Amino acid sequence: MRFTSEQRLDDGVLEREFTLGEVPGILWTPGSASAPAPLILLGHPGGLHKMYPRLVARARHSAAEGFAAATIELPGSGDRPRSAAAEQARADLRRALEAGEPVDDAIVDRLVLPLVEKAVPEWQAALDALLPLPGIGGPVGYSGGVIAIGTRLAVVEPRISAAVLFAGSFVPRALFEEARRVTIPLHVLLQWDDEGNDRQRALDLFDAFGSKEKTLHANLGGHTGVPQFAGDAAAQFFTRHLS
Amino acid sequence: MRFTSEQRLDDGVLEREFTLGEVPGILWTPGSASAPAPLILLGHPGGLHKMYPRLVARARHSAAEGFAAATIELPGSGDRPRSAAAEQARADLRRALEAGEPVDDAIVDRLVLPLVEKAVPEWQAALDALLPLPGIGGPVGYSGGVIAIGTRLAVVEPRISAAVLFAGSFVPRALFEEARRVTIPLHVLLQWDDEGNDRQRALDLFDAFGSKEKTLHANLGGHTGVPQFAGDAAAQFFTRHLS
Repeated sequence: MRFTSEQRLDDGVLEREFTLGEVPGILWTPGSASAPAPLILLGHPGGLHKMYPRLVARARHSAAEGFAAATIELPGSGDRPRSAAAEQARADLRRALEAGEPVDDAIVDRLVLPLVEKAVPEWQAALDALLPLPGIGGPVGYSGGVIAIGTRLAVVEPRISAAVLFAGSFVPRALFEEARRVTIPLHVLLQWDDEGNDRQRALDLFDAFGSKEKTLHANLGGHTGVPQFAGDAAAQFFTRHLS
Repeated sequence: MRFTSEQRLDDGVLEREFTLGEVPGILWTPGSASAPAPLILLGHPGGLHKMYPRLVARARHSAAEGFAAATIELPGSGDRPRSAAAEQARADLRRALEAGEPVDDAIVDRLVLPLVEKAVPEWQAALDALLPLPGIGGPVGYSGGVIAIGTRLAVVEPRISAAVLFAGSFVPRALFEEARRVTIPLHVLLQWDDEGNDRQRALDLFDAFGSKEKTLHANLGGHTGVPQFAGDAAAQFFTRHLS
């Protein structure tokens, strides 16, 4: 892990950009930390630059609760090399959505499954690099982003103790089997009128999760319309489980 | 309205039993109130004595937020005269549940619709009597109990500004039409594994509500298993809308 830039934000949060091999990422740590901070991994749909305003807002929110936050670029997004197969699947998906057609499971599989396969080990490598840093302790939470990545991480990565998942992306059928193996506390956000999301499949996925503590917060509005109070509730979930 | 008893609870909350005509009720007011308090109407499934431990816990929780709380007995419950038709419907419902049969809509209608017709004007009369009392101001919230009563109240009673509804009781088909006319902010609790509740109908009802702000909080567990943090979240909803 190599830090490439460092700046102090106006609320005292330290923001550091890094690269981990060829994967760029950002780490935010609270300005005043007496003890090593728990860490929240900030998931996103890909494209660190485009997502930066929302990511930094979530990181500041986390820092105010005493948590460090970190994110890395997804494979095939931002400045990372594209995969021809993923680009083809994305084009097929766009075409189906624009035509108002139901999205074929095969397209979702071609788009999401290779992404999960590549991304999950990278998030695990990021954890390997981040947790030994001074000021960062644990436990670790995973928040948002592609729900298939969050689900796989929750299954395979024992250092993650709790997750906020966003039921706002396409869910491969194969994910339901994995969902049953998730046992950590989950807080699932669902935007009731999300244009690009199948509500029934999101509810079925919530039902499938094996966790003893799981909560679904459904709110009115589209994909990017998560209300402020729903963000606050997700933050409280982490405070309850990571503090 | 006639007060029949008065006691100060250990946390300073003043508990007063009253009768309003032939309807018994209980009013709780915060120990220290500088300004007139908002009022939360505490719904319940019927049977004030049996429900008292849970009601007083909810009232203390409300008082700690600076809210007064009040409840009245439902028609046909507790010490109030039984209705032969309602008792018959209740027996038919029990028989269907014990036999593991789907509950016929006609049974739900016979049980719930007359209850709504009688109960709603009584809650409105309680508001008439409670709001002029010293120390009680408004706005008013309605919380829990039979969801058909809460829904009707939200439609017909303009003094109610926000409601926490519990999707844990049978929903007559006719209620869906009313639900579309609800416009106040709603916070709906759903116990995902509620034995006596049709989950799909609860989700359909949430979908039907006309409110621009509506949130569904679904949690694992059965009818009486609402987790502590879900109660806290409902309290925060009232703090946001009634304070």
